[in-house]
Amino acid sequence: MSFSDRLADAVRRDGPLCVGLDPRWDQLPAAIRRTYTGRGPAGVAKAFEVFGARVLDLVRGAAGVVKPQAAFFELAGPDGMRSLQTLLQWARELGFVTILDAKRGDISSTAAAYADAAFGGLPADGETVPVWNADALTVNPYLGADAVEPFLAAAKAADRGVFVLVRTSNPGAGLFQDLRCDGKPLYRHVAAAVAGWNAPTVGASGLGDVGAVVGATHPRELAELRAELPGVWFLVPGYGAQGGTAADVKAAYRADGLGAVVNSSRGVTFPFHPDDPDWEGKVEAAARKAQAELRG
Amino acid sequence: MSFSDRLADAVRRDGPLCVGLDPRWDQLPAAIRRTYTGRGPAGVAKAFEVFGARVLDLVRGAAGVVKPQAAFFELAGPDGMRSLQTLLQWARELGFVTILDAKRGDISSTAAAYADAAFGGLPADGETVPVWNADALTVNPYLGADAVEPFLAAAKAADRGVFVLVRTSNPGAGLFQDLRCDGKPLYRHVAAAVAGWNAPTVGASGLGDVGAVVGATHPRELAELRAELPGVWFLVPGYGAQGGTAADVKAAYRADGLGAVVNSSRGVTFPFHPDDPDWEGKVEAAARKAQAELRG
Repeated sequence: MSFSDRLADAVRRDGPLCVGLDPRWDQLPAAIRRTYTGRGPAGVAKAFEVFGARVLDLVRGAAGVVKPQAAFFELAGPDGMRSLQTLLQWARELGFVTILDAKRGDISSTAAAYADAAFGGLPADGETVPVWNADALTVNPYLGADAVEPFLAAAKAADRGVFVLVRTSNPGAGLFQDLRCDGKPLYRHVAAAVAGWNAPTVGASGLGDVGAVVGATHPRELAELRAELPGVWFLVPGYGAQGGTAADVKAAYRADGLGAVVNSSRGVTFPFHPDDPDWEGKVEAAARKAQAELRG
Repeated sequence: MSFSDRLADAVRRDGPLCVGLDPRWDQLPAAIRRTYTGRGPAGVAKAFEVFGARVLDLVRGAAGVVKPQAAFFELAGPDGMRSLQTLLQWARELGFVTILDAKRGDISSTAAAYADAAFGGLPADGETVPVWNADALTVNPYLGADAVEPFLAAAKAADRGVFVLVRTSNPGAGLFQDLRCDGKPLYRHVAAAVAGWNAPTVGASGLGDVGAVVGATHPRELAELRAELPGVWFLVPGYGAQGGTAADVKAAYRADGLGAVVNSSRGVTFPFHPDDPDWEGKVEAAARKAQAELRG
């Protein structure tokens, strides 16, 4: 089953909410921190794993898609990367579609190494050992077509997906993305490339395996891009803590209700004070509330 | 001592050669593969570490700068990231300036997590534990100023450097980088931003801590950018196996001979057949030859 069709099933079942896993030590529940304090980076990594696993349980049914952010796991070093690997595996076993948000990008054979890490695996001792084994990966397009294509090839070989950064959610995104190049902003050129890469992958749902990252904080651009890219899945960050509202992201959906997954990280996973004994209830409620808002 | 001044010292001492560490299992010397085969990803990671450490010894004196490529270590999973960490540490202890080539880029607090991993460290148990502890990191500018600034701030706090992708060495680099935006190609806009970020960091050598990645495969652009960015260090990939020659990179240097480090990965680290019993001699000779060519 293609990535796009699996994503469509998840969104039909649970709605468009994607829960971002961006663990930060100083925001973790105090009970978890107490258990893993004094063990250095290995303790921090283990705390991320325990917290992330609990969050996965709590948001099941409210979200069908999860998006771990590689940076926060990388900050806990090799142990953190082990926790990232474990959480991705658990998420898949629980039935989530997993998007590894690592914004990778490099030239040819180097891009292929990142792509193999994301989707294929390491050839070792006559077998291929999965590394991240994610359903999809975020990719930075600045290096051009031959830098993106290894990701597309690896995704195709393993029925996975790629989300290319088009219009990011940060306030300063426009410095380069909004430059007018040959009559239209740079991000529209990237969008056109995404449309081309996606076209051969469009499946039963009318959507393909090469998506676009488009921030919720830019509703006008979202609407333009939705019209321009009818067969492209959008990964929409910026909803919730970054200021995007459910109304802002409406433009991201197609008429059939598919076409976008909307990410909330802090808003769903850290809606509590670290000392709150009912942090789990708060996470569960925040996920249900976001699900209802986005479906409404 | 600032990053720029440390880099200037290394280039004055050993010349502009930067040796790229891009380990690939199937190209490793057969003797190393035999020792570590049958141990899965942990064996591959250990083989990368052993090979990389030997290369560091062999290229000492021929190069003062090394650049591990994160992708190849990531493909060996968390164990590979541990080997990356170990090699970066050894390289620093041996006196190399280290550039972690990870092409990171993300919004605000996420970029800060990558930057802390590169330069600062993980706050755990009242101390800050280094993660990669590299002297410099490559950064992708597509997300804009507020996405690059956390890297600049972390670099400044720890006397480290950043190399921003401007004009990459791959054949398809121009798809977006060459688009004409407001009268000049996109990469010149990025170059202008780099000049602005670099200006406040210019030190005793006349060069600053915010560099630019400019491929050896584009000599004309290299010359233009050298003229436009007199105080900016260039990291020049594409020399050697990718086709760039010593003549191609001449334009990257300033009149004082400083201003560029020129990377060779495969050309220096894999100039042998895996079965060659004298692979170490081949690496040493390749490094000396590249040093002489680039100095000549």
